[in-house]
Amino acid sequence: MPKISLAEMEEIAHDLPWVDMLGMKIDEIGEGQARVRLPYKADFLRPGGTISGPAMMGLADYGMYVAVLSAIGRVELAVTTSLNINFLRKPGQADIIGDCRLIKVGRRLAYGEVLLHSEIEHLDEPVAHVTATYSIPPDRPA
Amino acid sequence: MPKISLAEMEEIAHDLPWVDMLGMKIDEIGEGQARVRLPYKADFLRPGGTISGPAMMGLADYGMYVAVLSAIGRVELAVTTSLNINFLRKPGQADIIGDCRLIKVGRRLAYGEVLLHSEIEHLDEPVAHVTATYSIPPDRPA
Amino acid sequence: MPKISLAEMEEIAHDLPWVDMLGMKIDEIGEGQARVRLPYKADFLRPGGTISGPAMMGLADYGMYVAVLSAIGRVELAVTTSLNINFLRKPGQADIIGDCRLIKVGRRLAYGEVLLHSEIEHLDEPVAHVTATYSIPPDRPA
Amino acid sequence: MPKISLAEMEEIAHDLPWVDMLGMKIDEIGEGQARVRLPYKADFLRPGGTISGPAMMGLADYGMYVAVLSAIGRVELAVTTSLNINFLRKPGQADIIGDCRLIKVGRRLAYGEVLLHSEIEHLDEPVAHVTATYSIPPDRPA
Repeated sequence: MPKISLAEMEEIAHDLPWVDMLGMKIDEIGEGQARVRLPYKADFLRPGGTISGPAMMGLADYGMYVAVLSAIGRVELAVTTSLNINFLRKPGQADIIGDCRLIKVGRRLAYGEVLLHSEIEHLDEPVAHVTATYSIPPDRPA
Repeated sequence: MPKISLAEMEEIAHDLPWVDMLGMKIDEIGEGQARVRLPYKADFLRPGGTISGPAMMGLADYGMYVAVLSAIGRVELAVTTSLNINFLRKPGQADIIGDCRLIKVGRRLAYGEVLLHSEIEHLDEPVAHVTATYSIPPDRPA
Repeated sequence: MPKISLAEMEEIAHDLPWVDMLGMKIDEIGEGQARVRLPYKADFLRPGGTISGPAMMGLADYGMYVAVLSAIGRVELAVTTSLNINFLRKPGQADIIGDCRLIKVGRRLAYGEVLLHSEIEHLDEPVAHVTATYSIPPDRPA
Repeated sequence: MPKISLAEMEEIAHDLPWVDMLGMKIDEIGEGQARVRLPYKADFLRPGGTISGPAMMGLADYGMYVAVLSAIGRVELAVTTSLNINFLRKPGQADIIGDCRLIKVGRRLAYGEVLLHSEIEHLDEPVAHVTATYSIPPDRPA
């Protein structure tokens, strides 16, 4: 069972400037996992007709945040400490979907991965792969 | 001598959705190096009063793009292939400055690093450090 | 079907100084995947009774090499271009197993991940996670 | 002033299996920095006549350990939590030198970078670049 509901997560997202600026959505929340979506906008295109890298980084970072909260509950002050992205293919002009899963949830750190794919392409042809570490504040209520 | 001028670079930046959305500026261009700036906006804050991670990723990625073009000339189709960010300190509510330098410029790949610091803090107290690889398209005119 | 057999891979491994020095073994080869093993030796321990980091990096790098050759055939000159490791738990004093799978196999680059776990611990309690990119030489015979 | 002497560091190195196995040396220690060396051995070559990746990862990891102890004193239980290496050029058949400097030294984490170059090549033509994070145990004596 996820430790945060979609409704709560959407409420938190109101305070995340990035979510609104990019129009990001949550498709699903599991425990320690999440599927998030970057609805396609022509605004995101950069020279070459590719969706710009930072839009995909923003999606992966958001997906990780949702996955972390789904595992530890409403700890809004969890923050990214590192993020590593590898771009694998040029995405088509379509929504980007990010599938996130945590690989480790510790007391102080959570670590996971995100596979990004374009909605019009195969799941086994990802456009990018991300790993990231989140720091969990020490003084959160048990 | 940089292989691209500030004026040219600003012209290219018109086609980069990210630059305008974040309000990013170029302070300086050298050959294989650049200083870029993310002017502070309250919009970038996330819970905890921190500037959100993706804004800093966007700044680093842009700085690398400027540095790459300063080394190889106007090759707009150069794209990020990987980016690794480590967040080191919570930035203050002020402009973020990114100092970028290329470590290697090859025929097909350029690799470099970006040190991000908050304008109101010391240069030796960076808020984040980034390494990134850009891919250079093979068919560019010599 | 893997494009390289276990016997061929063991023959290639004779020329890899690292494999012999660490005593690494291959448990299984699939197409684009491999399971490799670092048999436990007290020699690998560092202060704190932990298996030293470079031994685990060596295992992950070897596993990726096997996985790459399983996908593209006997291309011995494939080389690592980047490797990113995150240590997640202190491993016990036992064999370390590395499960590798490729996420993308392109014409020039292959990218994949490796999950390392200690043989005496649960698969869902990995000791480290690695992502790596291999470069495939352009002039290989088709 | 470094918080650890070369003599003390060499004493600690006796307990690091890796150092002896690879024959690594320390050229210099500064505060928060170190220069380490991997003396050339034909044993390190892999197909293609290149020095194998894990030998360079081992050198970088050791250099970071020396740099961390030079900044915080004799805390042998400091351990790597993540390491990211980018290979930039094929090294010649010569010693590899690693120049390490810490970018941040916090209470719990230290973060730094290592530039590796071949002794017979120019300093501005590095063979690899590494960033790494070390975890500092919480209960060390002040």
